[in-house]
Amino acid sequence: MSCLDDEDTFKILVATDIHLGYMEKDPVRGNDTFVTFNEILDHARKNEVDFILLGGDLFHDNKPSRKTVHSCLESLRKYCMGDRPVQFEILSDQAVNFHYSKFPWVNYQDENLNISIPVFSIHGNHDDPTGADALCALDILSCAGLLNHFGRSTSVEKIDISPILLRKGRTKIALYGLGAIPDERLYRMFVNKQVTMLRPKEDEDSWFNLFVIHQNRSKHGATNYIPEQFLDDFINLVVWGHEHECKIAPFKNEQQRFYISQPGSSVVTSLSPGEAVKKHIGLLHVKGKKMKMEKIALETVRTFHIEDIVLADHPDLFNPDNPNVTQAIQAFCMEKVELMLDTAERERLGNPRQPEKPIIRLRVDYAGGFEPFSVHRFSQKYMHRVANPKDIIHFFRRREQKEKKEIDLNFEKLVSRPAEGTTLRVEDLVKQYFQTAEKKVQLSLLTERGMGEAVQEFVDKEEKDAIEELVKFQLEKTQKFLKERRTDAVEEKIDEEKKICLIHVELHIYYYCEKDGRYNLFVAFCIGLGKSTRTGQA
Amino acid sequence: MSCLDDEDTFKILVATDIHLGYMEKDPVRGNDTFVTFNEILDHARKNEVDFILLGGDLFHDNKPSRKTVHSCLESLRKYCMGDRPVQFEILSDQAVNFHYSKFPWVNYQDENLNISIPVFSIHGNHDDPTGADALCALDILSCAGLLNHFGRSTSVEKIDISPILLRKGRTKIALYGLGAIPDERLYRMFVNKQVTMLRPKEDEDSWFNLFVIHQNRSKHGATNYIPEQFLDDFINLVVWGHEHECKIAPFKNEQQRFYISQPGSSVVTSLSPGEAVKKHIGLLHVKGKKMKMEKIALETVRTFHIEDIVLADHPDLFNPDNPNVTQAIQAFCMEKVELMLDTAERERLGNPRQPEKPIIRLRVDYAGGFEPFSVHRFSQKYMHRVANPKDIIHFFRRREQKEKKEIDLNFEKLVSRPAEGTTLRVEDLVKQYFQTAEKKVQLSLLTERGMGEAVQEFVDKEEKDAIEELVKFQLEKTQKFLKERRTDAVEEKIDEEKKICLIHVELHIYYYCEKDGRYNLFVAFCIGLGKSTRTGQA
Repeated sequence: MSCLDDEDTFKILVATDIHLGYMEKDPVRGNDTFVTFNEILDHARKNEVDFILLGGDLFHDNKPSRKTVHSCLESLRKYCMGDRPVQFEILSDQAVNFHYSKFPWVNYQDENLNISIPVFSIHGNHDDPTGADALCALDILSCAGLLNHFGRSTSVEKIDISPILLRKGRTKIALYGLGAIPDERLYRMFVNKQVTMLRPKEDEDSWFNLFVIHQNRSKHGATNYIPEQFLDDFINLVVWGHEHECKIAPFKNEQQRFYISQPGSSVVTSLSPGEAVKKHIGLLHVKGKKMKMEKIALETVRTFHIEDIVLADHPDLFNPDNPNVTQAIQAFCMEKVELMLDTAERERLGNPRQPEKPIIRLRVDYAGGFEPFSVHRFSQKYMHRVANPKDIIHFFRRREQKEKKEIDLNFEKLVSRPAEGTTLRVEDLVKQYFQTAEKKVQLSLLTERGMGEAVQEFVDKEEKDAIEELVKFQLEKTQKFLKERRTDAVEEKIDEEKKICLIHVELHIYYYCEKDGRYNLFVAFCIGLGKSTRTGQA
Repeated sequence: MSCLDDEDTFKILVATDIHLGYMEKDPVRGNDTFVTFNEILDHARKNEVDFILLGGDLFHDNKPSRKTVHSCLESLRKYCMGDRPVQFEILSDQAVNFHYSKFPWVNYQDENLNISIPVFSIHGNHDDPTGADALCALDILSCAGLLNHFGRSTSVEKIDISPILLRKGRTKIALYGLGAIPDERLYRMFVNKQVTMLRPKEDEDSWFNLFVIHQNRSKHGATNYIPEQFLDDFINLVVWGHEHECKIAPFKNEQQRFYISQPGSSVVTSLSPGEAVKKHIGLLHVKGKKMKMEKIALETVRTFHIEDIVLADHPDLFNPDNPNVTQAIQAFCMEKVELMLDTAERERLGNPRQPEKPIIRLRVDYAGGFEPFSVHRFSQKYMHRVANPKDIIHFFRRREQKEKKEIDLNFEKLVSRPAEGTTLRVEDLVKQYFQTAEKKVQLSLLTERGMGEAVQEFVDKEEKDAIEELVKFQLEKTQKFLKERRTDAVEEKIDEEKKICLIHVELHIYYYCEKDGRYNLFVAFCIGLGKSTRTGQA
C-alpha cells in the first residue's frame, strides 16, 4: 500500500493516555508527564501534521491541579499556535459536532486564534465530565480555544455518534469519537442497540472512517469491556485509548475487517509488564481509503524494567532450611537489580530530556517455604539510583495468586434494611460496614473519614450525578492514598502490583424514596479481590 | 479640567473585587458574579476603552471551581477578543513587567491572539499566588492569553515596583501595580523603606502616574492597613482595591496631593452598610496629565437594603413588661421588611439581567430588656421574596457591642511545650486545644475535622509556603462554612454581621527543629473577638 505524502494525504499524530499531572508531587517523577507531552507536541510540529488526535486521559486527575492546567495551556499555546496554515476543511455541521461547547466550532477556524495544529480529543475515564456543570478538564482547554473536545454524548438512553467530516484534497475522513463511559453501561447499550454511528448521506463509501474510543479492550469480567465486534464494520481504523500497553501497529480484526491501533500510554502508571513495552506514538497517513501508521518512539519516557524470580526454580541456590537463605535471596535480588540497572543505562536513548533514574520492578515468587526480606531496608540502597526505591521488590506466592477470586462482601449481612419510616444515618451505615469489614479489609478504614464527608456532600446535594462524583472521588482518593500517602504501617500490605490488581474499592449506594419524598440511603463499600476494572490502567 | 476624547486620550475601564464564583452553589445568588462580570466587559466594549484595569479579587476562591474558571475564560474570550485595533503602545521592557509569566509580553501584541481589549490585573488577597508553584488563578488566564497579570513582587525582602509604560498619541501613562500582600508585612516594609517605585529615566514629569493596589485602606488595628501617606507623592491617581464600598469619585489626599479612587466590589459579599452603597465601575479618561473619572452604575447587581431599629427608641410602641411585646416587635419588623421590599422593587433598574429577589438586612438593637424572636420562623415568610431569607434579621445589643475588645486565647495554657525528645502529634495538639477552647469558642469545633486534615497535609509537605496555604485554606473553609453550610444548630450563634466582625479564625503554627532534624510543631487556633482583618471585605 503506497502512501506518498501529497496534497491529498492527511498526516495525523495519534497519541493517548498522557496522564498530565500523574505523580506531580513526586520529587523525582513529578515532571515526567509534562516533559513527554512537550515531546509529543514537538513531534507533531516537526512532522507538520494536519492535526493531533488524542484518545483520552490527557489529564490524570478529574480536577487537575492549577500547575497541571497551567503547564498544559503553556504547551498547547507554544506548540499548536502559529502561522502554518491548516490545510483541511470541515464539511460537517460543527454546531452538532461541538454542541456542548460555548464556542461550537473548530478552534483553527476561529478568526481570533492563530492555530497551526488543531488538537482533537475525546475524554477518558480520568478526565471525564462530572458535577452539576457537567464540565471536564478538557472543556477548560476548549473554552480557551486550544483544544477541540469532541465525541461527548450527553444522553444515557441513546448514543448517536455523528462524525466530524474532514476533507483534504481528494481524501475525506469521517472522524468518530466516543468519550469514556463506564464499561458495563456502554456494553449494555451496545447490546440493546442504543449506540448508533451516523453516516454521511452522499457517497458513504468514499469516506475513510476513523473511530477513537476510550474503554477496556481486554476482558475484565463478563460485561466490563467492549468486545471489538460490537463496533460497526464500516469502520476502517479504530484508535483504542485507555489500555496502557503500546500495540500501535494496526492489528486486523478478521471478523469485522477493520484495523485497531492501540497507542498505549506515554507514561508508566502501573508496574506491570504491559507498561514495560517501549512507548510510542503514531504518525498516521491517510490517502483516499489507504492508510499507513508510522511508529514514533518516545525518547523522554522514563525507562521501566520488570523481571520475575521464582525462588523454587533455584534449588541449587536457595534451600529453605538454610538459616542464611534469606541473606542469599537478598544478595541474589541485589545482583538482579544491578543487572537491570545496567540494561536500563544501556537502553537510555541519549535524549537529554529523558530522566536518568529508571523505574525498576523485581517480582519475587517466594513460594516453597521461603521468607520475604525487609523491602524497606533493601529500598534504602537504591534511594539515589532508582526512581521508585520504595517498591522495587514485590514478593508474591504463585499458589496464593491462583487461589484469589473476585469475591465481594455480603452487604445484607453488613447493612440491614431499616424498618419502614426509620431513617438511617448514612454515616452510621458506613461505620457499621467498616466495623464489620475491618477484619477482612485492612485498608478500608483508611478512607473512612473521607467517606463520611463525601457521603455527607452527596446527601446535601441530592443530585443524581453527585453519586458518580462521589464514587469517582472515593476511588481517586483511595488510589491517591495508595500511590502517594502510604505509610510504613501499610507499606508491606500494599505494593504497586497489589494496588492495581487486588485492591478495588467501589462505593455502592442504594436509595429509595420514602412516602414523604425523603431519600433513604444504603451505602456500602465493595472491596473486590482479584482482577479489578483498573487493572493495567492505573 | 477639560477632557474631550481624541487620539491623545486613554479610555480605561476601572473595576475591582468582582469575586467570580462567590456563593456559586447558592441556588438563588449562584450566578450573580458571572452576570455582573459580563455587564462590566460589555461596558468596556460599548465604550471602546483602550484597556481594562482590575484591582484584584477577580476570583473569590484562591482555587476557583472548574465552572468559575470556565465561565471566566468564556467571558474574556467573548468580550475581549476581536478585530478592533488596540491604539496604545508599550514602551517599557515587558520582560520585566511580566517576568514571572511563561509568555512575558502583553497579550494584544501576541501575533497568535486577536485581542481587542487588553485586561490588566493585579491579584487580590482572595486570588493571590500560593503553593510550591507560586501560581495564582490569574496565571491560568494569562497563560491562556486572555489577561495580563502584573504588579507581582516575588521577593519578601524588597519590593521594586517597575511601571508598565504606555503611550497613546501624546499621552504617557506609567502604570504601577502591587498585588495583595498581608497588610502587616507590607506596612512593615513601607516603614523599613523596602518598597521602591521606579521611575522612567527621561522626563519623569511628563508621565501620568497611575497606581493600583489591593490592601486595607481603613484602619484595622495599628499596622493592619496601608496609610495613604505611605504612597509616593509623585503618583497622580491611586486605584484602591479590596475595600468593597464604592467611593469611586477621586478623592484628594491633600497631604500627598494625589487622588484616590476606590471603585468597590461589584457584588455584595457582606451585609454591612458599606455594601449597600450603589455599585459602580469607572470610565477613566486620561489626556496628558489630566484625568476624568466617569461613574458607570452597574445595572445587574442584586439590590441590597439594610436598616437599623433601636427598640429602646420606641417606648410608645414597645414596653418590655408587656407579655405580648415580642409579637409586637415581630409585627413591626415585618412592616419594616415589607417597606424595604417596596423600596427595593422601586429601585430596580429594569435591566432584564438584574436578579429580582433583593438582599434584605434589618438590624435590631434589642437592648433594654427585650427578647429576640425566632429568626428561623421569621425567615420562612420571605423564602420566596428575598435572596437571603436565613439572615434577614440580625439582633444585637449596642451596650454589648461596646464592651467587645480584641482578645486572644492564651496558648501556653492550652498547648504545653513537649519535653525534649518527645514528639507531639499535631492532631493531639489540635484536639487538646479544641477541648480547652471549646467552652469559650463554640465555633472552633466546626472546623476540627478539616483542621486535622489540613495540618496533616502540611506535615506531609514540610514546605514553608504550605503554612500560608494551610492558613488560607482554614480561613476560607471556616468562612465558607459560615456562609453556606451553617445549620440551625449554629444559626442563632452566627449571623452575617458577627461572621465578619466577630469571628476571626487564625491558625498559628510554631515549629522548631530537633537535634535529629525532625520538626516539632505547635499548632493553635486563635479566635479573635472584635474587629477582624476581614471586616467589610468578606
